[in-house]
Amino acid sequence: MSHDAISVIRAKRDGGTLTPAQIDWIIDAYTRGEVADEQMSALAMAILLNGMDRAEIARWTAAMIASGERMDFSSLPLPTTDKHSTGGVGDKITLPLAPLVAACGAAVPQLSGRGLGHTGGTLDKLESVPGWRARLSNDEMLSVLREAGAVICAAGDGLAPADRKLYALRDVTGTVEAIPLIASSIMSKKIAEGTGALVLDVKVGSGAFMKTRADARELAETMVSLGTDHGVRTVALLTDMSTPLGLTAGNALEVRESVEVLAGGGPADVVELTLALAREMLDAAGLTDADPARALADGSAMDHWRRMIKAQGGDPDAPLPVARETHVLTAPASGTLTRLDAYAVGVAAWRLGAGRARKEDPVQAGAGIELHAKPGQTVRAGEPLLTLHTDTPERFGAALESLSGDAIEVSDEARVAVPPTILDRIA
Amino acid sequence: MSHDAISVIRAKRDGGTLTPAQIDWIIDAYTRGEVADEQMSALAMAILLNGMDRAEIARWTAAMIASGERMDFSSLPLPTTDKHSTGGVGDKITLPLAPLVAACGAAVPQLSGRGLGHTGGTLDKLESVPGWRARLSNDEMLSVLREAGAVICAAGDGLAPADRKLYALRDVTGTVEAIPLIASSIMSKKIAEGTGALVLDVKVGSGAFMKTRADARELAETMVSLGTDHGVRTVALLTDMSTPLGLTAGNALEVRESVEVLAGGGPADVVELTLALAREMLDAAGLTDADPARALADGSAMDHWRRMIKAQGGDPDAPLPVARETHVLTAPASGTLTRLDAYAVGVAAWRLGAGRARKEDPVQAGAGIELHAKPGQTVRAGEPLLTLHTDTPERFGAALESLSGDAIEVSDEARVAVPPTILDRIA
Repeated sequence: MSHDAISVIRAKRDGGTLTPAQIDWIIDAYTRGEVADEQMSALAMAILLNGMDRAEIARWTAAMIASGERMDFSSLPLPTTDKHSTGGVGDKITLPLAPLVAACGAAVPQLSGRGLGHTGGTLDKLESVPGWRARLSNDEMLSVLREAGAVICAAGDGLAPADRKLYALRDVTGTVEAIPLIASSIMSKKIAEGTGALVLDVKVGSGAFMKTRADARELAETMVSLGTDHGVRTVALLTDMSTPLGLTAGNALEVRESVEVLAGGGPADVVELTLALAREMLDAAGLTDADPARALADGSAMDHWRRMIKAQGGDPDAPLPVARETHVLTAPASGTLTRLDAYAVGVAAWRLGAGRARKEDPVQAGAGIELHAKPGQTVRAGEPLLTLHTDTPERFGAALESLSGDAIEVSDEARVAVPPTILDRIA
Repeated sequence: MSHDAISVIRAKRDGGTLTPAQIDWIIDAYTRGEVADEQMSALAMAILLNGMDRAEIARWTAAMIASGERMDFSSLPLPTTDKHSTGGVGDKITLPLAPLVAACGAAVPQLSGRGLGHTGGTLDKLESVPGWRARLSNDEMLSVLREAGAVICAAGDGLAPADRKLYALRDVTGTVEAIPLIASSIMSKKIAEGTGALVLDVKVGSGAFMKTRADARELAETMVSLGTDHGVRTVALLTDMSTPLGLTAGNALEVRESVEVLAGGGPADVVELTLALAREMLDAAGLTDADPARALADGSAMDHWRRMIKAQGGDPDAPLPVARETHVLTAPASGTLTRLDAYAVGVAAWRLGAGRARKEDPVQAGAGIELHAKPGQTVRAGEPLLTLHTDTPERFGAALESLSGDAIEVSDEARVAVPPTILDRIA
């Protein structure tokens, strides 16, 4: 009996398990356009509400990989290793991390994405570097990797086309927040990308897709087992996203902070997480003797950054774009800053122009938010807490609205508990 | 803040209650094409799995009515009354019922549909009468009503366009079987149709959408309260659909049986249900003294049938189409027929050509199935049990396949319990 979309939808709707043949068929038929968007979105909603078991998720992921090409870096003389973050506010870690790991002797072939909603996108950030190009052919990608040891670029159309189509559909149908679909989307691209090792940075908190540690752990475990099953050495860190990472959220602002880290400075939490992820990536690639802290200190990471930027057409010495207008938000009271909500800051930065509402919208390179204090630090009433940046000052109002209410909290207590940057490790 | 489809989808996905403003907006925006099919299908799946409360269903129904025109028969000198069946196998009741009720002094303005899947459609059945036309303008509809007291025709494009669009979408996205969506779909059309009274025939069993009496009761109660809230006197009967109604399933075959009933004959269950529904329709219209049994016996119901058929271009004296080929299926054993499954017979008739797989497919007027025995009757091995009719004999195989397995069951027991035709009444 031939498959049809309605019987597959019904099976999941009624709480059943999809067979491998049903999964293979529907992913292939959807990619070819035989299964319509409105059928796939109904199935995605049924998956979101009724779940998929591990075997279904594994098959779904394999089918999405099989929908396109699979890259191969085995011609490189170096082990490949990569990182993926589930997305947060101020999460610029990829920028210092990729050249740092390259400086320690691994190759980092990172296919990255653009921001949508309140989380920024790595490609949007790098595009604030004058001249830098995100779109590379497979040959160009290999050549940048040979030149700089690391490449960060947009995934080509040939890679997991089923995922590209499904991702865009989920975005407009309220079906993003399904762990099986998030896990299979991320892992199908990363496995098709051909990396030998992979470290996942699974964010937890208000600024992340996963609001609770239990959900983040489930997502991490699902992805680690998917990677392992496909022969990719995979480890996950669960990291805090209750407050923004570092002191900036925005495109050029985050590039500037990343360069500070590569120069041996930068905010403590960004440095801590960059080094922890670098060690995991190098361990997973078999380079257990590498010393990423030294590569930051001795300038070799910065050297790889400059080579990577140049190899992709960028000028690492050009001044970064700056927004035309700023607005300073001051601390509402004196005391300890107990909350600076990641989601509120992310939405504010997005409204200032750092992010986009629709895929085809442009972003402002200079827009975003600078933090002058982090939770746990002392602030004084009337002193600057945040600086908002934008080219379009009519947006200040909407951005400030997102930062009102309980987004910012200052307490009389002298000491408050602040969550650690790294919450857990799953291997 | 303006509405957006994703926030409405998320609200229902996460188990929330939609606000009146959200419901009004999404129905209107979907009708206008601002909300896409893939968004509405995700919402429909969330409604199917998470439900809607009575207030949501009432608002949803009102919004669908408001999406189009509302008919008005108050210029007629007679009370209006109508019937709707949720659909079953061999359910030709509308054909004798509408002229019968007209003969008793009420006006029956019935907007009807076509069959899809294993259940037949009233318009498909009537179109097997040579010359008969389903599409009438509003003026033509009123003129047939004045001439014959009853009209059965296709709903115009102006009536509940939101429902028309959503119905077609649900059909291809596995979201048909949601009680809130079924109830609002039926009732939005019937309320917009402008009838003053309405009797619902809610089918229960293998050949119906509602497989259990609990589901059927929930659907019936939901629809009765929707009708009552909109000022339509509404009553529901729960009736058996474990086996086909009457002795025929198919278009011309069912017209023939309907004419037998109008002539004072016909199978006992069809006569029983026709009279029961006629009494309910007449009571709801305030005609409590009417005597439908006499109208069948004295030929006045038949007279109204002939006037109705003629007024819509049909020839009540023309011979009905007959299929080119027949195949007889004999009883597998001697004993009491304990099961003749409605769904199996419906699928078999559909495969023979009586129904359509897609909206644009034609149907065969002569195709279908004749029953030579009903559950509870005695059969003898090798004697005819069913006659299959089709113009395309290559379809016999698929039809017989649907009738294999446990679709037909003959028992040694002398007496078996057969469900009554009418199971319950909800007012």
